[in-house]
Amino acid sequence: MSNRFLIVLVFPQDGSHWINMKVIIEALHSRGHSVSVVRPSDSWYIKETSPHYTDEEFFRSFVSRQIQIQREGKSAWTRFSLDMELKDRFSEMHRKVCEMVIQMLENKQLMQSIRETKYDLVLTDPANGGGVVLAHYLNVPLVFNVRWTIHGEAHFAIAPSPLSYVPFPVAELTDNMIFFQRVRNFLVYVIRQHLYKQTVGPHYSALVSRYFGPEVDYFSLFQAADLWLMRVDFVFEFPRPTMPNVIYMGGFQCKPAKPLPQELEEFAQSSGEHGIIIMSLGTLIGQFPHDVADEIAAAFSHLPQKVIWRYKGDRPMPQNDLLGHPKTRLFVAHGGTNGIFEAIYHGVPIVGLPLVFDQPDNLSRMKVKGVAKVVDLATLDRNIFSQALQEVLDEPSYRMNMQRLSRLHRDVPMEPLDTALFWIEFVMRHKGAAHLRTESYRMPWYSYHSVDVMVFLLAVVLFTLLAFIGIIRCFCCRACLKITIKEE
Amino acid sequence: MSNRFLIVLVFPQDGSHWINMKVIIEALHSRGHSVSVVRPSDSWYIKETSPHYTDEEFFRSFVSRQIQIQREGKSAWTRFSLDMELKDRFSEMHRKVCEMVIQMLENKQLMQSIRETKYDLVLTDPANGGGVVLAHYLNVPLVFNVRWTIHGEAHFAIAPSPLSYVPFPVAELTDNMIFFQRVRNFLVYVIRQHLYKQTVGPHYSALVSRYFGPEVDYFSLFQAADLWLMRVDFVFEFPRPTMPNVIYMGGFQCKPAKPLPQELEEFAQSSGEHGIIIMSLGTLIGQFPHDVADEIAAAFSHLPQKVIWRYKGDRPMPQNDLLGHPKTRLFVAHGGTNGIFEAIYHGVPIVGLPLVFDQPDNLSRMKVKGVAKVVDLATLDRNIFSQALQEVLDEPSYRMNMQRLSRLHRDVPMEPLDTALFWIEFVMRHKGAAHLRTESYRMPWYSYHSVDVMVFLLAVVLFTLLAFIGIIRCFCCRACLKITIKEE
Repeated sequence: MSNRFLIVLVFPQDGSHWINMKVIIEALHSRGHSVSVVRPSDSWYIKETSPHYTDEEFFRSFVSRQIQIQREGKSAWTRFSLDMELKDRFSEMHRKVCEMVIQMLENKQLMQSIRETKYDLVLTDPANGGGVVLAHYLNVPLVFNVRWTIHGEAHFAIAPSPLSYVPFPVAELTDNMIFFQRVRNFLVYVIRQHLYKQTVGPHYSALVSRYFGPEVDYFSLFQAADLWLMRVDFVFEFPRPTMPNVIYMGGFQCKPAKPLPQELEEFAQSSGEHGIIIMSLGTLIGQFPHDVADEIAAAFSHLPQKVIWRYKGDRPMPQNDLLGHPKTRLFVAHGGTNGIFEAIYHGVPIVGLPLVFDQPDNLSRMKVKGVAKVVDLATLDRNIFSQALQEVLDEPSYRMNMQRLSRLHRDVPMEPLDTALFWIEFVMRHKGAAHLRTESYRMPWYSYHSVDVMVFLLAVVLFTLLAFIGIIRCFCCRACLKITIKEE
Repeated sequence: MSNRFLIVLVFPQDGSHWINMKVIIEALHSRGHSVSVVRPSDSWYIKETSPHYTDEEFFRSFVSRQIQIQREGKSAWTRFSLDMELKDRFSEMHRKVCEMVIQMLENKQLMQSIRETKYDLVLTDPANGGGVVLAHYLNVPLVFNVRWTIHGEAHFAIAPSPLSYVPFPVAELTDNMIFFQRVRNFLVYVIRQHLYKQTVGPHYSALVSRYFGPEVDYFSLFQAADLWLMRVDFVFEFPRPTMPNVIYMGGFQCKPAKPLPQELEEFAQSSGEHGIIIMSLGTLIGQFPHDVADEIAAAFSHLPQKVIWRYKGDRPMPQNDLLGHPKTRLFVAHGGTNGIFEAIYHGVPIVGLPLVFDQPDNLSRMKVKGVAKVVDLATLDRNIFSQALQEVLDEPSYRMNMQRLSRLHRDVPMEPLDTALFWIEFVMRHKGAAHLRTESYRMPWYSYHSVDVMVFLLAVVLFTLLAFIGIIRCFCCRACLKITIKEE
């Protein structure tokens, strides 16, 4: 089927999410499609009360304080108050997104120009709800690049998710749970759902109600998305129910390694038979505490392997090329999904240093699959870290298991990025994907779960029984009466 | 990833199911794989008490009698007794399959030769359970070519299937049901499940228990299959939950039309602008009642279109090539899935004459999508049939809707047959597909549905409440006591 060029409106999410979205945008560009990206302008930030304290700075400081609290074994109250600070910050972030959407929708000139552009679809990361509201307002098809939503992990919002064998991410559980793990999974799910609802729900409710009336709720607009391009894959996610409009593209950002810059290549080659270790703790690590860094460096210094450590600074490390280098033996990672998928793609086992958010859970999945050893920052010292490195380097099962995951992950009919692009273009060609999407989200919960049907059938059975008993009794009485009359 | 050649053991299902399986077997052959097919030998049939009355004959006679009953408006009792005859025949068919499996497993020489062949996988149509048992016995990966199982429609056995929006096939419902349709769906599901369990369950229970012990049940062996190659597609099936190891290959038997034999081509061309109508009622129609045939012929005779009618006889009609011919305007079909997918593939609207089994339901799906008009055989006469033909020929929406379905169906990253072959070879390359398969079927129902967790949590809440009330009461009593003592 022939393609014309697409005109796509992208409403992204900031931070590491943007790294993913950029890969898709660049791929769309390279296929000739035009892409417009909605982003907060500078003037937006100027209105903030503390203009120099951006989200990025907050999260960097948050991670540092989180590490400090973990290292110093601070009281539960300190942890709780940091969690509350995070919750407030999230709430504030979503308030700002909603305000931005209002500014857009109220800007008649901007909206007219957007309407005149006749976008084919809105592509958004529903970690914030701006794109969902915008797509509904413009009445154009909606495609998600997603793992997290404002309601938690994306599958839980779209597919049946029996809590008996589907671990709620962040609970650090597997698909094979004993009774008390299932209790934990259930509780974590209920509490998190409540938290999401309470923290960010009201901002979007107000926004949706303002433009579409009080009978419309954000959750149903969100569930009406045409396609969910899911940033996972079943070498990472445990097998679980899914839906026809969920397309898996986990690892879509991975690609074969390019040759390294000369100095790095020479460094790698100089490692000889021992090979190299790659260490990177993602985008959020600003100030890694000196004591931890010293312990890690001390552990590295006892190894024959050479180490490439992305410590600080603006110059990015060619992480994908390094992980794909034949000399690479091990990846020390914080457990963000981007890094994990790169490690899986290149078959490099992991020593994990999880910091915050989904990182402990992501790494616990890798641990269960026998491809990672996880070290707790709270208790990390040179001995513990050294042992972990040694174990993953010396025990062949880590590498073999990771190579097996890599083979499974790469053995697909079509590359994940090409799959994602195919389906984005599919939505354009057919103006949506209604035949893949249930409208069951429109049902009230008691209908969805057939509670009304079961109550009705029970009532019918009860009524029939009672009527039957009534008739029998009536007959008996008459018979008794007749006998009595006869006897008289 | 490089492929070596596969050695596949196929345990098929007879009848129209075999037409599908043959397509896959031939494709596997053409890729260099070797395929062995288990089939009942002649000696098998010789043992039957009525050697000349085969399954095929039974079903042909059954369909004829079914039509007769419908036409003559026979009593409910006659219908019921025919249904019971069908049920008994099914039970008998499954008994024979089980006996065949026992004969195989007891034949030491045969089993040794099978073991020595080192099959890579068993490919089976689980409309009968022979292949499931055989695969478990041989301990080789298991792949299904499936729509129906001995427990009913396949999705219902593997994926969560909320009865509120997933219509149980044969109920002739859609994914958008009003209350009493949902009641009907619920009841049909419960009754059918019971019927399947009662009719065919015991044969397989006995078989499985004989070879694997009483603690193993057929259902769990069946649910442990590595891959489910599902003979549907979401232009046919309503959107519903699915699982990662379900691969959709609906329409895999369809292919572009080849040129027609000269006489047929000349006939088609002679139809001029009016085009041709194709009529075929599948494999099971032996003796079509003369009165119905006469009415149909009379209706056709008033149309300007020319008609190609597969009436009887051994010479098969090149149905796919005819449906793909540019002169073809309409397909008169009984509603088997093979024919429906061919019509969808070639974008030809349907006038449906459903006979038995899933045919009324299949056609009702096509009707809802606005691509078919369904005629009831019970009331069919030349006027009714003529009106139906006229409507589908004259009303452009039928053709437009079918062309739209065709575009959706054909717009895929990979052809359905290639997809099926890719995944069959995937199972061979990785010796199964465990990472795509849940093991949740091993859980008891109360754990699967988290009933035990909810009861436990309720008990905890109740206990806490009671303890709290107890403590409060205790304090109150003491306080009262003190006051009383003081007062004294």
